[in-house]
Amino acid sequence: MKSVNKVAIIGTGVIGASWAAFYLSQGFQVSAFDPAPDAEHNLSNRVQIYLRDLFELEEHKLDDLQTYITDLLNNLSFYGHIADAVKDADFIQENGPERIDLKKHLYAQLTQNCPRDTIIASSSSGLKISDIQQDCVYPERIVLGHPFNPPHLLPLVEIIGGEKTQARYIQDAFEFYRSLGKKPILIQKEVKGHVANRLQSAIWREAFYLVSEGVCSAEDIDTAITNGPGLRWAIFGPYLNMQLANQQGFKAAMHHLGEPMSEWWADMKPYALTEEKIDMLDNETQQFIHKLGDRNLQETRNQALLKTLKMRAELDLP
Amino acid sequence: MKSVNKVAIIGTGVIGASWAAFYLSQGFQVSAFDPAPDAEHNLSNRVQIYLRDLFELEEHKLDDLQTYITDLLNNLSFYGHIADAVKDADFIQENGPERIDLKKHLYAQLTQNCPRDTIIASSSSGLKISDIQQDCVYPERIVLGHPFNPPHLLPLVEIIGGEKTQARYIQDAFEFYRSLGKKPILIQKEVKGHVANRLQSAIWREAFYLVSEGVCSAEDIDTAITNGPGLRWAIFGPYLNMQLANQQGFKAAMHHLGEPMSEWWADMKPYALTEEKIDMLDNETQQFIHKLGDRNLQETRNQALLKTLKMRAELDLP
Repeated sequence: MKSVNKVAIIGTGVIGASWAAFYLSQGFQVSAFDPAPDAEHNLSNRVQIYLRDLFELEEHKLDDLQTYITDLLNNLSFYGHIADAVKDADFIQENGPERIDLKKHLYAQLTQNCPRDTIIASSSSGLKISDIQQDCVYPERIVLGHPFNPPHLLPLVEIIGGEKTQARYIQDAFEFYRSLGKKPILIQKEVKGHVANRLQSAIWREAFYLVSEGVCSAEDIDTAITNGPGLRWAIFGPYLNMQLANQQGFKAAMHHLGEPMSEWWADMKPYALTEEKIDMLDNETQQFIHKLGDRNLQETRNQALLKTLKMRAELDLP
Repeated sequence: MKSVNKVAIIGTGVIGASWAAFYLSQGFQVSAFDPAPDAEHNLSNRVQIYLRDLFELEEHKLDDLQTYITDLLNNLSFYGHIADAVKDADFIQENGPERIDLKKHLYAQLTQNCPRDTIIASSSSGLKISDIQQDCVYPERIVLGHPFNPPHLLPLVEIIGGEKTQARYIQDAFEFYRSLGKKPILIQKEVKGHVANRLQSAIWREAFYLVSEGVCSAEDIDTAITNGPGLRWAIFGPYLNMQLANQQGFKAAMHHLGEPMSEWWADMKPYALTEEKIDMLDNETQQFIHKLGDRNLQETRNQALLKTLKMRAELDLP
């Protein structure tokens, strides 16, 4: 892979701005483009907030926070034309809207204006690269680089190519993210929602179903997760936890749990969202939030994420 | 509720021993019974290990670790007959095998030998209290008190009664667990797997499906969880995280995500466990574990749980 000096961020909403802060913190020049009014102003504001998190995460920094932010912001350039943002970019992280027609149009522009061997990684959570790359010149360097929100803090990046992507670019993207301290995974087959969103949506479905059926409240669901299995999922995933569920390991745990688990699966119903259900679930959520008082939930979550990431690094968790 | 001085632990395997350590650490007399050979010896060993965790969790303790353990072990008595263990117990935590025939027989014995207003809480992860309490005298004080492994560390306790349970005992059990620092939730309808195991098994199903289909490896699934959504689930549950997924909150996030999420749900298939699939998943898991080297996974997990619980307490997370 060619050496990366400049990263272009295309689309600078919440995800794009978070990526921008991350790449700045890794020492890259960052060029950004977004057609929205106020995009430049909003990007600068968001990047400063996210850089504060990253400063806290990297305790070894000697500079003070303000110097750190000012220095890194000098490496950020916003452009009014997409061609200017990508013309000498060595890596592109794209965060446009999740509509295939818009995405295809965007990628036609990107590929016509950036160097032909620059990898373009899409943050798309739902679309397939095979669909995105259809109308592009040099589609072989287009990959999925799907982060989790907020990308400046969460290490996961899901990677896969489309039908026209060359294997070496997929491998290069994987190594690039890994070299920056991210935790990339290489998906072997294009499926809807990739991997992590499918796992996440499996929980959502059952969480929505149980509350809709009156089994428990939204607050109970959140308590059940954060004081039960969710506590373990920040440490080990489902496979290692299953290994620890029985003193004889994974297979014994599966033999022990297999039968009841299969019964629970059989009892889990399809679930269709309606406007009424969304209203009801929202109402439950707002009641729960009201009980939590005045605190800033976003800030609390990011503080907790920082502490959890430090704990994971200290214990060298996989 | 009557004042609790002595808690009986019935069934002293991994779950029962962990409960025993928890109740000892809360200052109770604990009487224990288990028919297995070596049960007394194994219980004593396990309790000492778990008390070490609890000592670490409560940093304010002035005694040294050995004094703490020796003092608390003095409050633990093991009995060879179930009647002796429960005859003057003020609260019973039952952790017998998950078979309804054994459970019904056990509860007939328990209820004949313990005081008539002593609450009996079952750790059962799959059975219904309505089925368990069928052949009992005074079935109105039998409730579910389902913990998550390891119960001495994880705060969640799921509570519900059966058809013959009186509401006041359900409320008393809830208040009792809460007074000990646990996070009980009150389930409103008896469903298979209660709440947390249903949420957990939703993830398992998709995790097993994706690996069986060759979409990714078991290691990839665990990486996706622990470096992605799992990091957030130790902090906030699915409802609060959905609120934070959009700057306009839960409803806007649902409108944004609802369509792709419904597509992912439609793409999620039923999954049937077979011996071949279990072998394959086990093989994947053992390969992953092999890469992690020699470390003791159980100890690592418990250390990480302790740190996560301290972080949650510091930030006063719900």
